[in-house]
Amino acid sequence: RYGYFGRDSPEVVRLLLCNVSGCLTEGRIFLSASGAEMISVNTRDTAGLRMLQREGVEVVLLTSSLDPVAQDLSQIVSQRLGCEVLRVGERPLEDLRPLVKKRDLTWKDVAYMGNEEVDVEVLNLAGLSAVPSDAPLMAINGAKYICSAAGGRGAVREFTEHIRLQKKKAKSQLEQDRIDRTNC
Amino acid sequence: RYGYFGRDSPEVVRLLLCNVSGCLTEGRIFLSASGAEMISVNTRDTAGLRMLQREGVEVVLLTSSLDPVAQDLSQIVSQRLGCEVLRVGERPLEDLRPLVKKRDLTWKDVAYMGNEEVDVEVLNLAGLSAVPSDAPLMAINGAKYICSAAGGRGAVREFTEHIRLQKKKAKSQLEQDRIDRTNC
Amino acid sequence: RYGYFGRDSPEVVRLLLCNVSGCLTEGRIFLSASGAEMISVNTRDTAGLRMLQREGVEVVLLTSSLDPVAQDLSQIVSQRLGCEVLRVGERPLEDLRPLVKKRDLTWKDVAYMGNEEVDVEVLNLAGLSAVPSDAPLMAINGAKYICSAAGGRGAVREFTEHIRLQKKKAKSQLEQDRIDRTNC
Amino acid sequence: RYGYFGRDSPEVVRLLLCNVSGCLTEGRIFLSASGAEMISVNTRDTAGLRMLQREGVEVVLLTSSLDPVAQDLSQIVSQRLGCEVLRVGERPLEDLRPLVKKRDLTWKDVAYMGNEEVDVEVLNLAGLSAVPSDAPLMAINGAKYICSAAGGRGAVREFTEHIRLQKKKAKSQLEQDRIDRTNC
Repeated sequence: RYGYFGRDSPEVVRLLLCNVSGCLTEGRIFLSASGAEMISVNTRDTAGLRMLQREGVEVVLLTSSLDPVAQDLSQIVSQRLGCEVLRVGERPLEDLRPLVKKRDLTWKDVAYMGNEEVDVEVLNLAGLSAVPSDAPLMAINGAKYICSAAGGRGAVREFTEHIRLQKKKAKSQLEQDRIDRTNC
Repeated sequence: RYGYFGRDSPEVVRLLLCNVSGCLTEGRIFLSASGAEMISVNTRDTAGLRMLQREGVEVVLLTSSLDPVAQDLSQIVSQRLGCEVLRVGERPLEDLRPLVKKRDLTWKDVAYMGNEEVDVEVLNLAGLSAVPSDAPLMAINGAKYICSAAGGRGAVREFTEHIRLQKKKAKSQLEQDRIDRTNC
Repeated sequence: RYGYFGRDSPEVVRLLLCNVSGCLTEGRIFLSASGAEMISVNTRDTAGLRMLQREGVEVVLLTSSLDPVAQDLSQIVSQRLGCEVLRVGERPLEDLRPLVKKRDLTWKDVAYMGNEEVDVEVLNLAGLSAVPSDAPLMAINGAKYICSAAGGRGAVREFTEHIRLQKKKAKSQLEQDRIDRTNC
Repeated sequence: RYGYFGRDSPEVVRLLLCNVSGCLTEGRIFLSASGAEMISVNTRDTAGLRMLQREGVEVVLLTSSLDPVAQDLSQIVSQRLGCEVLRVGERPLEDLRPLVKKRDLTWKDVAYMGNEEVDVEVLNLAGLSAVPSDAPLMAINGAKYICSAAGGRGAVREFTEHIRLQKKKAKSQLEQDRIDRTNC
């Protein structure tokens, strides 16, 4: 027999790391002559993130130094969703390792959604990982789950549903294990 | 014989309840660094709502506490369309029951357009109900009519046309019944 | 023999009347909490209108009282394209007849692009008429030319190219007629 | 044997000239009543331009006098991408010739991305040239490479990847030539 001996929590995601550009948004940045920038997010996606937060999963949004969303715009997204926003560099793994360690988690406990070549390392490491349907091939090859929805059009929602389903499965598996142990 | 005996009005919708996010809009919210939010509506849809209002159907738009559109933005939509906007919680039915009762209507007289899991209860109850083509499966299963257009891209117009058609059918049926009774 | 006897100009369009909402735009209106409205136009379409203007065709844009674009926004479009913007009511024909008469034109000299049921009368009358690919069936049935592009995504450009082609054909036909007459 | 005898640089692009409207953007201009204009760019595309800049390719963006993006908006794009923006007239070739000459380059060293009829001359001349998938047929016929992505939706990224691939091929060819010469 195998399973979750001695562990309270099975493969249950505790932390979702998700790119803003191209995952939570369509990748578009609206530029005005005054220098103000806008992005658009989909309520379907943000509702999915809220559901996950309610179930105790922390959500951290990632912006990239390769194509920065203005710092003040990140604050808006952060406030709106009630979650941290972190700027990562050309090797997101370097920036994310301390974050995962600080929370006393392993990569198994982390879900990752990315859409660029630089994301491949973390897509491979994370317990659950996904890309939007319109991600470049390189990123798609690195992900464990490929969304049928495109970035900014439901991809994040789809991944959050996938995570919630995995959580349910893990819980019912854990329950089953407990029953099995009791009946030994 | 069956039909509309003793009732002045047959299955004629008196009230349309319609989600803003994902039905009247594509679900997108545009966020700017200044904190100002924008949404986009389609003139095809809003023209459809106006036609319905002219034919005496009340329109009430619904925003959700799960993914709130800023209160002041709701006011703009409300003014533009000349209709009430109501914020509903996680169980829209609870919030809508008093509204229907106050108007002395039954759910048969109500048309409902929603696009989330929480909308399923009301989608089932309402005399006519619809979802946009891009609604989640759960919501689609609960609706009586599935639009071929997506949210924010004509789904509301399509449903208003459906309602108007049903009204015409009901009226001509009522007319027929009267003729039948006279000829008895 | 038939043709252009006694007329200097054959079926050459002198005036293009074109709906703003749903033809020049995708039909979307962006609403912000401050009450400011935005629309988007495609440079492909506006470049097409400019080409037509350079060839001596007057362009008049139409907004509808059924779904008004804010008056000040119409002014912006008007200035940007250097053309008149006219608000029409529920029967555009009524509002457009004086405009055509004032210019000493007949409907044969007019090209019309519309996308609503109310446009059908004028779509029928105009010498050349078109609808975007995503217009309602009712409007499509009334048009002489159905664009393969959708509103706000190249439909106007497509129609302007069609008009320019017709002008070229008419001119070469006129030339031919002159030669024929000379050779009589 | 043939190849790069006596030339330090093989078919390696040194300069990318790229239209803003319809290539870097979807061609949409957002107009507000206050007169402020907005455009949207895709982070996938801008990230591609940055990668190219890092590899030593100069990027110059082109706006057209046929459909001007407001001068101040061009400045924003210019600053954001750290590249020059040049306004070209009805014959882009006239305006671009001095620019290419000033940099001591030949058209072989230039990559060009355009989407209008007026671009055909330069599309033909440039060492590498491309159009977005949604360009008019006339422009498509003039281009050496037709992107599978549409303007503002990854076409620029696709072309930059193509340019980088050509650079790699040229370099490895050059390397091979050197080895061959050494082994003579």
